[in-house]
Amino acid sequence: MSKQKKSALKENKGISVSEITNKSSIESIKKKRKTKIDTDALLASILKKDVTALSRAITLVESKNPKHKKQANTLLKACLPYANNSIRIGVTGVPGVGKSTFIEAFGKHLTSIGKRIAVLAIDPSSTITKGSILGDKTRMEDLVKDKNAFIRPSASGESLGGVARKTRESIILCEAAGFDVIIIETVGVGQSETTVHSMVDFFLLLKLAGAGDELQGIKRGIIEMADSIAINKADGDNLKKAKLAKVEFNRALHLYPEKSSNWLPKVILCSALQNEGIDSIWNIILEYIEITTKNNFFSKKRNEQNKFWLIQTIEEQLKSDFFNKPKIKKALANQIQLLESNKTTPFAAADYLLNLNN
Amino acid sequence: MSKQKKSALKENKGISVSEITNKSSIESIKKKRKTKIDTDALLASILKKDVTALSRAITLVESKNPKHKKQANTLLKACLPYANNSIRIGVTGVPGVGKSTFIEAFGKHLTSIGKRIAVLAIDPSSTITKGSILGDKTRMEDLVKDKNAFIRPSASGESLGGVARKTRESIILCEAAGFDVIIIETVGVGQSETTVHSMVDFFLLLKLAGAGDELQGIKRGIIEMADSIAINKADGDNLKKAKLAKVEFNRALHLYPEKSSNWLPKVILCSALQNEGIDSIWNIILEYIEITTKNNFFSKKRNEQNKFWLIQTIEEQLKSDFFNKPKIKKALANQIQLLESNKTTPFAAADYLLNLNN
Repeated sequence: MSKQKKSALKENKGISVSEITNKSSIESIKKKRKTKIDTDALLASILKKDVTALSRAITLVESKNPKHKKQANTLLKACLPYANNSIRIGVTGVPGVGKSTFIEAFGKHLTSIGKRIAVLAIDPSSTITKGSILGDKTRMEDLVKDKNAFIRPSASGESLGGVARKTRESIILCEAAGFDVIIIETVGVGQSETTVHSMVDFFLLLKLAGAGDELQGIKRGIIEMADSIAINKADGDNLKKAKLAKVEFNRALHLYPEKSSNWLPKVILCSALQNEGIDSIWNIILEYIEITTKNNFFSKKRNEQNKFWLIQTIEEQLKSDFFNKPKIKKALANQIQLLESNKTTPFAAADYLLNLNN
Repeated sequence: MSKQKKSALKENKGISVSEITNKSSIESIKKKRKTKIDTDALLASILKKDVTALSRAITLVESKNPKHKKQANTLLKACLPYANNSIRIGVTGVPGVGKSTFIEAFGKHLTSIGKRIAVLAIDPSSTITKGSILGDKTRMEDLVKDKNAFIRPSASGESLGGVARKTRESIILCEAAGFDVIIIETVGVGQSETTVHSMVDFFLLLKLAGAGDELQGIKRGIIEMADSIAINKADGDNLKKAKLAKVEFNRALHLYPEKSSNWLPKVILCSALQNEGIDSIWNIILEYIEITTKNNFFSKKRNEQNKFWLIQTIEEQLKSDFFNKPKIKKALANQIQLLESNKTTPFAAADYLLNLNN
């Protein structure tokens, strides 16, 4: 109820208290009904592939308001039977590799063959900049105008875990809205690639020829996660270098044991700018889906990802519940002082704090 | 009280119940006193550098018996003021690199210059084999006979975390027993290297020339952890290859940003078999200690390690407390079924389980 309304009611001396109560309870029932209708209406519109409704639903999922969260959960549950039917693709690469240009070219190719695609993002820096990648939609000018494409900037949040949850829930909404392909874009910073890898079916690593960061990729375990590597900007003077890089990356891929998917990661040359090799990448993804559907790896992986997120969410919550308790915070600071002055061991201190909690 | 004693008491009809109670309470007091005396005596003997007492104390730390655990905690607390004065060195390398031969040569060098050294181990396979590395002391024949050396096989346990706790507590006991250098040996399997790295001051990686596993080291992040790399078996025909490997590893080390210790990791050639380069490694460690003591990194690192173990222990316990509750186990299995049949999301399932726990 607005402040204005409240004071208007207060000033109206002619109405009895019970009447006021009745009025407001009726209003509250109406409100509840409206909420109910809203969620139902939102679901109906989403199922009708209405992207405005989809946007509103994602905003609900991203909201910190407990009421919105409840609504979001209801909506997600209602969307579940219609979800799970897309191909989820992760795209990563260092800044400058041409991710936006690639996604635009790749997306346009998909819509040209009749697919509807949604582009989401996980931006680890969004906690500071409140969403920097994909925030500037002008970088995908053509795709933005395509009625069969939906682009949504990275959610912002206090933690990567929070952003990840919002993105995963957005995937369900996009799938219910009938998108055939969901692309999750990320940049190679911190844990964001691992996070995206744990929510997609196919993980594509974009590389540049001769960038000399092959070892970096190995170091960070990113090459191990890739289902394919696309060497972008393989055009003009770059082509020779790109062909050499292909050999190198193929060698790097052989360092790793065979994947349980039975899939042998491929290295492909492409030029997003010249629109070359883009269709080959889609064909490789289709081949991957075919192989992993046949050997059941596809659904096994999705199940494992679901379990991973279930366990991960519980563990994060257990930790934050424990360490945010005022008495634990105080006692922890104390125990750390005792540790620093060599008066306790880490294990004795841990036992003390755990007992305090029980 | 033994079964025999109990039945003897029962059969002795001439003694009244109160007398039995008195007798047993006196016995219990005596027992308590004896326990008290034992811990005190053990501490006194440990401080007198008695290795038999040290062995008994480590056995207490390793025991699963709750009474022993309590005694161990009392003893550890009493040892703390005498601990913390050693140099803790982690030694790792793949099987075949010559770890035992190296530790024997290194240990003999240290005792020859008047140091007392203790060798502990973390063996991730000990959960299966009940301690395989260092179990066979014959592999360090000379060192075993040295009165200034103490060798203890890896503790066994259900988890790496359990083994790690026992080893960390053993370090405190060894330090109270006046050992100047503690070596923690491990093999490059799973998380064991990270675990050892988080409990030592200096982490030494043993390598072989031309083993071709340089990339493996980079992949697993092991080179990043190393404070120095010693290329072992750099003798005879191997010397040339070893010198080349030195250049390669120096290059690999430069891939990483400068360490906050201001220490530049060094690559050294050595031959444990020929006893060559062993003294240089000790000199490098002394140099490291000098630099990091001056810039306070040494104590800062120990404090951070203590905090790491404190938090780690709490987190592990929170998880195991939660997931081992029968009602959670049952409900988790249920939620996983719902997940697999696409009737819930990982986040809704997590919320459900967390609410069930509250």
